[in-house]
Amino acid sequence: MNILYDDVADIVKWISSFGGLDNGGTTRLLYSKEWLDAQNALKERMTNIGMTTYFDDIGNLYGRFEGSKHKDEVVMSGSHVDTVVNGGKLDGQLGIVGAFLAMAYLKEKYGQPLRTLELISMAEEEGSRFPFVFWGSKNVFGLANTKDVENIKDAEGINFVEAMKSCGFKFNTQQPRKDIKAFVELHIEQGGVLEREQKSIGVVTSIVGQRRYNIRLIGEANHAGTTPMGYRRDAVYAFSRICYESINKAVAVGDPLVLTFGRVEPKPNVVNVVPGEVLFTMDCRHTDQNVITSFTEEIEADMKRIADELGLEIEINRWMDEPPIPMDAKLTKMLEEQCQKANLNFRIMHSGAGHDSQIFAPRVPTAMLFVPSIKGISHNPAEETKTEDLVEGIKALTYALYQLAYQE
Amino acid sequence: MNILYDDVADIVKWISSFGGLDNGGTTRLLYSKEWLDAQNALKERMTNIGMTTYFDDIGNLYGRFEGSKHKDEVVMSGSHVDTVVNGGKLDGQLGIVGAFLAMAYLKEKYGQPLRTLELISMAEEEGSRFPFVFWGSKNVFGLANTKDVENIKDAEGINFVEAMKSCGFKFNTQQPRKDIKAFVELHIEQGGVLEREQKSIGVVTSIVGQRRYNIRLIGEANHAGTTPMGYRRDAVYAFSRICYESINKAVAVGDPLVLTFGRVEPKPNVVNVVPGEVLFTMDCRHTDQNVITSFTEEIEADMKRIADELGLEIEINRWMDEPPIPMDAKLTKMLEEQCQKANLNFRIMHSGAGHDSQIFAPRVPTAMLFVPSIKGISHNPAEETKTEDLVEGIKALTYALYQLAYQE
Repeated sequence: MNILYDDVADIVKWISSFGGLDNGGTTRLLYSKEWLDAQNALKERMTNIGMTTYFDDIGNLYGRFEGSKHKDEVVMSGSHVDTVVNGGKLDGQLGIVGAFLAMAYLKEKYGQPLRTLELISMAEEEGSRFPFVFWGSKNVFGLANTKDVENIKDAEGINFVEAMKSCGFKFNTQQPRKDIKAFVELHIEQGGVLEREQKSIGVVTSIVGQRRYNIRLIGEANHAGTTPMGYRRDAVYAFSRICYESINKAVAVGDPLVLTFGRVEPKPNVVNVVPGEVLFTMDCRHTDQNVITSFTEEIEADMKRIADELGLEIEINRWMDEPPIPMDAKLTKMLEEQCQKANLNFRIMHSGAGHDSQIFAPRVPTAMLFVPSIKGISHNPAEETKTEDLVEGIKALTYALYQLAYQE
Repeated sequence: MNILYDDVADIVKWISSFGGLDNGGTTRLLYSKEWLDAQNALKERMTNIGMTTYFDDIGNLYGRFEGSKHKDEVVMSGSHVDTVVNGGKLDGQLGIVGAFLAMAYLKEKYGQPLRTLELISMAEEEGSRFPFVFWGSKNVFGLANTKDVENIKDAEGINFVEAMKSCGFKFNTQQPRKDIKAFVELHIEQGGVLEREQKSIGVVTSIVGQRRYNIRLIGEANHAGTTPMGYRRDAVYAFSRICYESINKAVAVGDPLVLTFGRVEPKPNVVNVVPGEVLFTMDCRHTDQNVITSFTEEIEADMKRIADELGLEIEINRWMDEPPIPMDAKLTKMLEEQCQKANLNFRIMHSGAGHDSQIFAPRVPTAMLFVPSIKGISHNPAEETKTEDLVEGIKALTYALYQLAYQE
C-alpha cells in the first residue's frame, strides 16, 4: 500500500501551519482566523482530489466521494480541526489528514466506491475557546441547542454566536444525519501504553466513563507550634489518609480503573499553621459503569468515615458523571481482522480520554484507531508520534474504509 | 492584691489604640508612625509613675525604678511592642502593660525596690515589616549587626535603616547588657492548652526547638485518563503516603512532639492531570533536641525510601534548625511556688511558639508566664483572653517581681 512516509510528514506539517507557533505547537481556536483558514484550505484540498465539499450551518466541513451503488449509505471518517491553546500538531487534525490520505489513495487506486466515502473536519471538540465541548459532533446529530451557546463568551468577552457569524456561519438546530452507516476516527493515544508496549496501532473497544468530584474537608486552622497533635483537626492529614488508602484500593482493583487526586488546595497553606481546610479533586475512570459506580460509592463512604473519625466535616460534590461508551463490536472486530491480515503491529485497548467518537457511538456504528504518543504527551507543543507509526495508523484506516465502502 | 480588672481592661484598650483597626485588631509595624506613637505614649506613662525612662540606639524603650541596695542588679520584665499585620490586642504588648501595672503596684505598695526594676518595651520581634526577627531582644545583647539590616527593605521598598532614622534612631552595634539578673516575660499562650484545661496561668519551662523544611517530590505529569496506575509517578500520592505515615509516627511518639505539613502545592494542580510535582513544607517541634534530631532523621530517611520505592526524585531542604531553649530552672521553680502560695490556677507547660525570652534565656536567668488564648487564636483580630485571666497572669508576674526585686 503506498501511503507514503513523505506524504504523511508533509500533510501534518501543512495542516499544523494554520495557527502554528514558534515553539512548534499549534493554537487554533474555534471560529478564529486560523481556524477559518484551516477549514478553507482543507476544503480546497478536498476539491482538488475531486471531492464534493460543503460546510454545514455551524462550520463542520465535509468532502464526499459519492457511492456508485449505495449513495445514501455513508462511510465517514475524520476528527476535529480545533486545538487547545498551545497544543500540538496531531490532536484532532491527524484524524482529518489521515482520512484525507486514505480516501485519496482509495479513490486513486479503486475508483468510485460502492458506498459514499465522506471526510469530516469537525468544527470543535476541545472546549478551549468557549465553555462548550463536542460542538462539531453534536451538530452532526442535532444534539446542540441554540440556548446552549447563545450566552457564552470567550476569555475576551466575545460572544459565541457573534464569533460564529464572523466566520460566515449561522446556527439553526440541524437535522440529525441518518445516512451514516459507519464512522471510524483515527487519533493519537494521548497516553503511553502503545509506546511502552512497542505497538504502532491501538484498536479501541471503548471510551472510559468518568466521575469527577470536588471535595472539601473542613477541620480547624491552628498554630503549628502550640497545638498538641491530640487537639488537631488537620485537613491535610485527613486528605493524605483518603488519598493514600483510595489509590491503594484503586491499584488493587486493577486496570482499567484509574483514580487521580489532581488538585489539592489547603488553607491557609503556610508552613507554620495546621491546615484548617483542603479542597481537592478526584477523577475516576473505567470502561465498566458498574465498576465506576461501586468503586466510587465505596470511596465516598470511606471518605465520610475517615472525616468522621478525625472530627472533620466533608462536602462531596460529584459534578461529572459520564458513562463509558463502547465502540461497535462488529466494526471493531473488522478493524482487528484487517490489522491481522495486513500483519500490522497492533493491540486491542480502551481510550482513557474523551473523543468525538463518543458522540457518534451511541447513534451509528463507530470505531477508533490510535497511534502512539511519544512519552504519552499531548495538549502540548511536544506532542509527537513517529511518522512511521502515523503511516501504520493511516494504513489500518485505509484497509477499514476499503472494507466498508468498496465491499458489499 | 489590687491588680484591678478595670485597670487591666483599660490599659489593654489604651495600648491597642495605637495602630488600632476598625475590625478590633491592631497593625503596628516596626518604625511606623503607630509604632513611634505607642513607644512615646508608653514613655510618657512610665515617666508619670516616676520611672526613669530612656530609649537605646535602635528604639527599645526602658523605664526604671532604681534599686536602693543593688542598683546594678536589674530585674527586667516586658515584651515586644510591634504586631503582625492585622494582629490582635495582646501578642507582645500584654507583656509590656502587664509589667507596667505590676511595677506600678509594687512601687506604690512597697516603695523603692532593693534591686532595680526595669520595664522593657522591645522594638520588634515579629519580622512583619522587614525580613528580620528579634531585632529588639538581639540588640539588648549586642547580637545584631549593621550588615544584617542595612540592605533589607519592606514591602514598599523602604530601607530598614532609613525607616529607623525617620523615627530618630541610629544603629550602632550596642554593648550587651550585663546587669540583668532576671528576665520574666508575660505573654499569651497562642495555643489552646490552658483554655481546654481551664487554667489561668502557664509557667513555661522551655521553648520548643524546631526544624522547618521545604521538600520537593518530582515524578511525572500524565493524562489522568490514559495513564494506567502502574505507569504513574504520582507526586500527590507519594506526598500523601509521607504525610500519613509521618504524622502517625509523630502521634505515636507523643507530646510534646508536633509535626505539621502546612503547605502543599502540586503541579499542575488540575483535576485531570496526574500531578508530576509537589512542593510541601514540614515543621517539627519538641522541647528536646535529641528527639527533634532523631525523629526528623527517621522521617527524612522514610521520605527518601518512599520516593525511591515509588520512582520519584526528592529534594529535602532543611532551612530552619532552632534548638530548644530551656527557661531558668531556679526562676521557674520560684514562679511555680509563688503561684502555689497565692493559690493561683496554673500549670507547668512548654511554649510551642518562639518569644523574645529565647534570646534572653541563654544569657540571663529567664522565665515566662502564659495566659490562655481563647480558641488558641492569635495573629488575628479575634485574639482574646478573658480579662479575669489577664488579671491572674499579672498577679503571678507581680509576685515574681516582688520576690526578685524586694527580697534579699
